[in-house]
Amino acid sequence: MLRRAQVREAQARAAAMMRDAGVVFTPEEANAIAVADFGLSRLEIEGAQILTFFNSERVSAKVIALFPGQTLPEHWHPPVGNDPGKEETLRVIAGTLYVGLPGEGCVRHALLPAGKEDCYTCRHEIVMAPADQITLEPGVPHWMQAGSEGAVLYSFSTCARDILDGFTDPNVVRETQIID
Amino acid sequence: MLRRAQVREAQARAAAMMRDAGVVFTPEEANAIAVADFGLSRLEIEGAQILTFFNSERVSAKVIALFPGQTLPEHWHPPVGNDPGKEETLRVIAGTLYVGLPGEGCVRHALLPAGKEDCYTCRHEIVMAPADQITLEPGVPHWMQAGSEGAVLYSFSTCARDILDGFTDPNVVRETQIID
Repeated sequence: MLRRAQVREAQARAAAMMRDAGVVFTPEEANAIAVADFGLSRLEIEGAQILTFFNSERVSAKVIALFPGQTLPEHWHPPVGNDPGKEETLRVIAGTLYVGLPGEGCVRHALLPAGKEDCYTCRHEIVMAPADQITLEPGVPHWMQAGSEGAVLYSFSTCARDILDGFTDPNVVRETQIID
Repeated sequence: MLRRAQVREAQARAAAMMRDAGVVFTPEEANAIAVADFGLSRLEIEGAQILTFFNSERVSAKVIALFPGQTLPEHWHPPVGNDPGKEETLRVIAGTLYVGLPGEGCVRHALLPAGKEDCYTCRHEIVMAPADQITLEPGVPHWMQAGSEGAVLYSFSTCARDILDGFTDPNVVRETQIID
């Protein structure tokens, strides 16, 4: 749950980060940046700011801004009807991005949210710099966290149906509730 | 047909335009920018410079740089097997882009290549500025031309199979031949 003033502040901060990263967008798009707290009500720790260029039945392009140290919770994109699930390519524009993927390894760079280790099962950590990109097949769980300067990245994908994503954390509610 | 030196020069010029537009990419990607003369051997008039971020079976993301007044010839994306054809969203990053689409109207801003009016049948002209975007359904013919300052744009789409595109101009050869 977020207050409307928090949403506006996060939108403005995310828009400034995106602009500084060289992303070109309209004032209307800036005002439509989605601020997601994933129902956890601690945006700075677990959350994301998302500008959607477009989302069709076949293709989607978004820009995500993560504040310094902010973590987008572990999730995956399940099959929906005849769609095998969202295939997603992350491409970093600015900052450092830590991505957690299934597999062996240990998390050396990201700092997982304290006390929530059970909600972050992906322990194969990738460190991504600007112009690095990775394609995630449908169904592959992943989380991401920005380094100390925040991060701006593209998410290019097949149709995004965020509301149907699966989350490891049972407390996640994908749709952000906004109060005055 | 292009000389290797022409290709290198066009790559460097396109990379500089993309960089100035805020696009972030690696030196390897800059060196891999595709320079397409569409077999017409007059790159500055009809051609395009294309940086491919990635192209999977389901999604593709590219950045296209067009030099001032350069025209990407009229083409369409036909069905391929079970694929209904490429759905493509053009989103301008820098400069002005004139796009020709089927329908009524007349071309007021673009200057179609002289003597080649028969190869440009789409006469419904759209003028696009930075952050403007348009989604083209599969099979819809279109051409594009940069304004006097050139243009940089994204092409977000389903799988790109450029070699199978249809062109109005029977002289087009999609694969650029490079000689030393």
